[in-house]
Amino acid sequence: MPHTYQYPRAALTVDCVVFGFGEGGLKVLLIQRALEPFKGRWALPGGFVRVDETLDEAARRELGEEAGLKNIFLEQLYTFGEVGRDSRERVVSVAYYALVKLSDHRAKAATDAAEAEWFPMSKVPKLAFDHANILASAMARLKGKVRYQPIGFELLPPKFTLSDLQHVYEAVLTTDLDKRNFRKKVLGFGLLVPLKETQMAGRHRPAQLFRFDADKYEKLKKRGFNFEL
Amino acid sequence: MPHTYQYPRAALTVDCVVFGFGEGGLKVLLIQRALEPFKGRWALPGGFVRVDETLDEAARRELGEEAGLKNIFLEQLYTFGEVGRDSRERVVSVAYYALVKLSDHRAKAATDAAEAEWFPMSKVPKLAFDHANILASAMARLKGKVRYQPIGFELLPPKFTLSDLQHVYEAVLTTDLDKRNFRKKVLGFGLLVPLKETQMAGRHRPAQLFRFDADKYEKLKKRGFNFEL
Repeated sequence: MPHTYQYPRAALTVDCVVFGFGEGGLKVLLIQRALEPFKGRWALPGGFVRVDETLDEAARRELGEEAGLKNIFLEQLYTFGEVGRDSRERVVSVAYYALVKLSDHRAKAATDAAEAEWFPMSKVPKLAFDHANILASAMARLKGKVRYQPIGFELLPPKFTLSDLQHVYEAVLTTDLDKRNFRKKVLGFGLLVPLKETQMAGRHRPAQLFRFDADKYEKLKKRGFNFEL
Repeated sequence: MPHTYQYPRAALTVDCVVFGFGEGGLKVLLIQRALEPFKGRWALPGGFVRVDETLDEAARRELGEEAGLKNIFLEQLYTFGEVGRDSRERVVSVAYYALVKLSDHRAKAATDAAEAEWFPMSKVPKLAFDHANILASAMARLKGKVRYQPIGFELLPPKFTLSDLQHVYEAVLTTDLDKRNFRKKVLGFGLLVPLKETQMAGRHRPAQLFRFDADKYEKLKKRGFNFEL
């Protein structure tokens, strides 16, 4: 298809920040670059948008190609368009982000050319391009989001303890929370349904198990709340 | 500059949703298209991004060129990349939005080729391209935002009544609010400082004047709250 507008145009890419939650806390999926520039450097999975695919499709395709990840619910984060962000030429990147349960998504490099790996947030290496900036934006968005939307439904097993839920918040907020305050606050939303079961954990006394009230969860997700922590 | 990547690439545009608040409630700035496609149809101000300018710069430049608007604080809204959104070729658009005081920004067509006009939200004509969709997204973002961030500082005079503030909320939320509930809620945030002045309005009893506590306003903007209405 010929270009209707005859002038130099930017290249368009997508970059994906996929956060994974699991035993080791919060991690982020990175790809080791096989080509210049930044050959050998770790980067966010992503790549060029084809003219015949939507931005969402491009993001999902790249995640599949580069890390073998499928069926991830991605949200658009922000579009990064600084003039010098790629030394080769003008490249504008639409960034996406997602938060998934680590145990559901083992990353594997889909090509021999690239390595895919989950990095703990505290051990993220120096990234290619402006990807450290994109990652920081995604982290800030996630932190902001848990203040007005519930979190944990997709990340926890159907039955979980209050400690499990607290770990989710602590991982996302990268801070320790006061146990008593957290419990009081989270129980106050009427979001959690206590079960008639407990869970033994080491030498501690049995911990109460809960499940999410799915209706209430969806309602709070839509209506929002204020989780001051 | 030659293209490093040799394949068809999308054209990149910016589109701006500028909401104006004033006597007549909430309005949106539209431009009448002078060229095909959609010649004569109203559209959001916007245009093509140059390779040597950032996305923000492109948005500000287009607002200046098309409507004579300067110094507007724009926020990025979302990037629209459906494949068929422009019939000519693939065009991806980064949308921006802003909410300004109408009296500060009289729109004027900057070229003879185009008309610029503020339309009340209830009287928005059929728009070109997918601009109705972009406008709806901006409106939804704005409505969501006033639930967890204070609003009004940039839209009201330094001294205002609670009715004035209620009008801002009613305009953005496009709904009538209960006066007593609104007052109770808004005063509860400690955001408003009562002044030793009142304002006469017709035959009503004098209305108390307030100003915003700027520190508190900034703090709440950053920390967020939950304004359930």
